[in-house]
Amino acid sequence: MAEINRQIHLVSRPTGEASADNFRLVEQPLGTPGEGQVLVRHHFLSLDPYMRGRMNDAKSYAQPQELDKVMQGGTVGVVVASKHPDYKPGDNVVGFGGWQEYSIVDAGMPGSLRKVDTSRVPLSAYLGAVGMPGVTAWYGLMKICEPKAGQTIVVSAASGAVGSAVGQLAKTRGCRAVGIAGGTDKCEYVTRELGFDACIDYKAHKDPKSLYQALKEATPDGVDGNFENVGGPILDAVLARMNTFGRIALCGMISGYDGQPIPLQQPQLILVSRLRIEGFIVGEHPEVRSEAMKELGMLVGTGKLKYRETIASGIESAPEAFLGLLKGRNFGKQLVKLV
Amino acid sequence: MAEINRQIHLVSRPTGEASADNFRLVEQPLGTPGEGQVLVRHHFLSLDPYMRGRMNDAKSYAQPQELDKVMQGGTVGVVVASKHPDYKPGDNVVGFGGWQEYSIVDAGMPGSLRKVDTSRVPLSAYLGAVGMPGVTAWYGLMKICEPKAGQTIVVSAASGAVGSAVGQLAKTRGCRAVGIAGGTDKCEYVTRELGFDACIDYKAHKDPKSLYQALKEATPDGVDGNFENVGGPILDAVLARMNTFGRIALCGMISGYDGQPIPLQQPQLILVSRLRIEGFIVGEHPEVRSEAMKELGMLVGTGKLKYRETIASGIESAPEAFLGLLKGRNFGKQLVKLV
Repeated sequence: MAEINRQIHLVSRPTGEASADNFRLVEQPLGTPGEGQVLVRHHFLSLDPYMRGRMNDAKSYAQPQELDKVMQGGTVGVVVASKHPDYKPGDNVVGFGGWQEYSIVDAGMPGSLRKVDTSRVPLSAYLGAVGMPGVTAWYGLMKICEPKAGQTIVVSAASGAVGSAVGQLAKTRGCRAVGIAGGTDKCEYVTRELGFDACIDYKAHKDPKSLYQALKEATPDGVDGNFENVGGPILDAVLARMNTFGRIALCGMISGYDGQPIPLQQPQLILVSRLRIEGFIVGEHPEVRSEAMKELGMLVGTGKLKYRETIASGIESAPEAFLGLLKGRNFGKQLVKLV
Repeated sequence: MAEINRQIHLVSRPTGEASADNFRLVEQPLGTPGEGQVLVRHHFLSLDPYMRGRMNDAKSYAQPQELDKVMQGGTVGVVVASKHPDYKPGDNVVGFGGWQEYSIVDAGMPGSLRKVDTSRVPLSAYLGAVGMPGVTAWYGLMKICEPKAGQTIVVSAASGAVGSAVGQLAKTRGCRAVGIAGGTDKCEYVTRELGFDACIDYKAHKDPKSLYQALKEATPDGVDGNFENVGGPILDAVLARMNTFGRIALCGMISGYDGQPIPLQQPQLILVSRLRIEGFIVGEHPEVRSEAMKELGMLVGTGKLKYRETIASGIESAPEAFLGLLKGRNFGKQLVKLV
């Protein structure tokens, strides 16, 4: 195979906002799999907010993304060639192949590759509702927010891949689900299509008092669990509505990724209301994966867990699609289609 | 009995700093106990930082302290007269008699009164190391910080009633105990007498960077558990030293009691380091009390849990002693001796 594998590399780190200059399209000759390896043609690449944190050279979840290397990220695809006994051409697989058209994977390495069944769940959903974002929603909601019937769960970035699953899962537990999203379209989708009880358009409430007032109206009994994807003024508003013994799952603070940290205005409320706040990364909780995937797959397969995708085309579109995601221009799970 | 019972009432709420004007000394004729009641002569009154929160008319741990009523607070004393079969004159008792010289207690009400054994533990210790502050230390450390041998535990207000117990308990679990306190005297006491491994004098580090640097030197392996009594810049510094999966027990935020809330500067660290932060009030965890009191009593009785007391004399001294406590002028447990 003398084909070309097109890749996106990180070539510089952002100072302030990330920009297209931080990335470069690179063409590499496509190699062939060695013993125990599998060549995968990527069909979809996943773009996720956590990637912004990795672009900085600072302590974040993980080692920073290396410069002049392929951007890391989740992928789904189809096996093209295999020198590993468990895989054969045509197998649908989920992996962590990065921002490129192909990857060669050491298939024996635990967690490197996983075959998936696409008879009831579309391949792309394994990057969204039945993938890392879905399991993230499941873990943070079930293990940190601990929803109980009749309680109120609030989730920010509610129309996104994680947030939309959080609210729909909360509904299956008998909770009141309240979303926060940017724009009337997203809010209407969240309530009408996803079945949330209410959704607040944060763009219509730029003033903290106005946001708080809107949240108060949407949560007449206060907030028992908060699944936080955004941080900043949105977290401040929710914190002020938390009931005694409330739980906050801190999953993302996208509002602060680009610049200086955004202070939390009223930390004393954690004490006054005896709250529990927990930051987490789903990859560190493999123990829940099979239980979560089973429920998520069942819900998607039976149409009870809905999701939306924004799909960019071609590897060269990945940087702009990613920057748009950081600005909230996507609607639902942001993917790049590569085939 | 036509004796006089002197009391301190709260007569106005502070705007900003609390002051002596907020209190008034009131003389009342002493009543006699009715059926099922016990008359207690208070020997010591406990002064605690949480009382400041109750002086405000805002949501805090509990209902605000009522105006023109006796300030609430823990007391130890001796039964003078009893119309309850379980109590007789001379019994040593712990109760919640408030800022006054005597109280008449409905002894049958659960939690109202408890007889204590002063053969190995001094009566006043039931307001400190073997009382509410000790159990507070025990709960927050054991149930939230979850100390493991070899880990580092940091506690602020380290020479105080709660903080001193936290560090000494952490040492019994094989931890490195690091205190933060105000002044060289307090820091020397914390390390030399209480056996902490290190103590940082926050008054010598008014600049956040300097405070962080001192903390860094005292915690070469980072911080695994933080028992927070102070908040503000001290919490900011500790947060930046927290190890992955660290735990923060939020017990007090005395630095913010007097005025505007003090923002938390870098909340994103909760996510980056996957921390768990939990606010708590010991009174809501009665399930641990007997286990905690048993260990604390044993440690005090055998000289393994040391404590210091600052004792003001006479009920009329309570307001000034309390204001001093809020300024950190006490050294160890602040008491008012009434007999």
